[in-house]
Amino acid sequence: MVPGVRSIVAVASGKGGVGKSTTAANLALALKTLGLKVGVLDADIYGPSMPRMLGISGQPRSSDGRTLQPMENYGVRCMSMGFLVAEDTPMIWRGPMVMSAIQQMLRDVAWGELDVLVVDMPPGTGDAQLTLAQQVPLTGAVIVSTPQDIALLDARKGLNMFRKVDVPVFGIVENMSYFICPHCGERSEIFSHGGARREAERLGAEFLGELPLDIAIRETSDGGRPIVASSPESAHAKVYRAIAARVWEKAQEALGEIARRAPKIVIQ
Amino acid sequence: MVPGVRSIVAVASGKGGVGKSTTAANLALALKTLGLKVGVLDADIYGPSMPRMLGISGQPRSSDGRTLQPMENYGVRCMSMGFLVAEDTPMIWRGPMVMSAIQQMLRDVAWGELDVLVVDMPPGTGDAQLTLAQQVPLTGAVIVSTPQDIALLDARKGLNMFRKVDVPVFGIVENMSYFICPHCGERSEIFSHGGARREAERLGAEFLGELPLDIAIRETSDGGRPIVASSPESAHAKVYRAIAARVWEKAQEALGEIARRAPKIVIQ
Repeated sequence: MVPGVRSIVAVASGKGGVGKSTTAANLALALKTLGLKVGVLDADIYGPSMPRMLGISGQPRSSDGRTLQPMENYGVRCMSMGFLVAEDTPMIWRGPMVMSAIQQMLRDVAWGELDVLVVDMPPGTGDAQLTLAQQVPLTGAVIVSTPQDIALLDARKGLNMFRKVDVPVFGIVENMSYFICPHCGERSEIFSHGGARREAERLGAEFLGELPLDIAIRETSDGGRPIVASSPESAHAKVYRAIAARVWEKAQEALGEIARRAPKIVIQ
Repeated sequence: MVPGVRSIVAVASGKGGVGKSTTAANLALALKTLGLKVGVLDADIYGPSMPRMLGISGQPRSSDGRTLQPMENYGVRCMSMGFLVAEDTPMIWRGPMVMSAIQQMLRDVAWGELDVLVVDMPPGTGDAQLTLAQQVPLTGAVIVSTPQDIALLDARKGLNMFRKVDVPVFGIVENMSYFICPHCGERSEIFSHGGARREAERLGAEFLGELPLDIAIRETSDGGRPIVASSPESAHAKVYRAIAARVWEKAQEALGEIARRAPKIVIQ
């Protein structure tokens, strides 16, 4: 466990480019609107996007020369490799160095008291993801997928990976679910809608909700003001808040179970 | 060098989900239409999509118990981890095992005579990508990106990675460049158009062409009949053929240079 951090929720995807980081940023902000203390650990070492998405720049400071102070915006604390290296430097690091960087971001950061630490996982089901899933004490995982078959295939692999290492999968979010033309209002199911809901059923996982491919969601998160923060009354923000509420319920359930599973000392 | 294989061209992206595999499949088929002998090595071990995209199923055979026969469709030879393991198995492999699998797919496959072997790289700029770029004798690399800033940032990292290991970057392809609504015909620049062209200029790399986000491109490649093969007269297929022609020119230039660079034995 990480001292002061009650729960750690991974946001993962079997495949990149499905909107994992956008989902992680909006989920974190939506958890915050529930009155929770929230942090975001950007574990996507090779393509950190949280600094940009949460609109944070600058370098983290250390008050004691030993631990780093997390950065903060919208009331959410954040640590990312993006704060520590230049944006266009390729992080051509070997596996063990990646894990050590993530361990440091987890344990040598003065997170303070947090109800939830959202971990934006690197996309995929490779070495780094497996090690992360094993070494970070995850309370559970949320899997993001587009409805496209090939993305769902990878989502299934991601789900199997978490199950193999005994991390509860809280559910699946369908992103880029459909596109509404801003000119005529007609809907196009570019990546074919509904696939993630069917896949979730097939896999016995919960379907947490769906978000369209929408310029507003894309632009706000690229611009450092994710839609949950910048348009809290929008339909999209409501979907994110509903997902956050369900994730927090499931995290509490999982914490209860973990507590129950721990051995008891009985004095007779 | 791989015996019989004249040139090896990597199709790479700094970030997943930008359409790298769709581009690789259509590029390979377009190179074929130029009259070249073409193979595709699916090096995306964690998320192999070539079997599905090229519409190939079944298992590769070995005639001598030592080398595998590549699979084939549309006149293009193909090898992929997808042929060797079940589709939904997570490839939770450690780094060195990945490299050894790719080396085997490169060297223990009876590719025969090929003008171009297109390598569908795993997305990203991590460990596996670096090792691949170092250990596979690449003639050059094509980088695929969406116009989205955050994808371009990762594209730049990919470009820097290839330059660091002295692999010529043939150019950048902008994918999901814009979306034409099938209902009203109006254009939406969902991921903001033109970014890859500007980035290519900035980086001193060639801009090879742009493809829209189009249901026809997505569905045909998901359905195993990429648009270059299934609608050769379409505007999209023409763009892929133009890109292929330029890539082949650049490959020939690079081969010439490599030959010139090789030390000569002078008998006096």
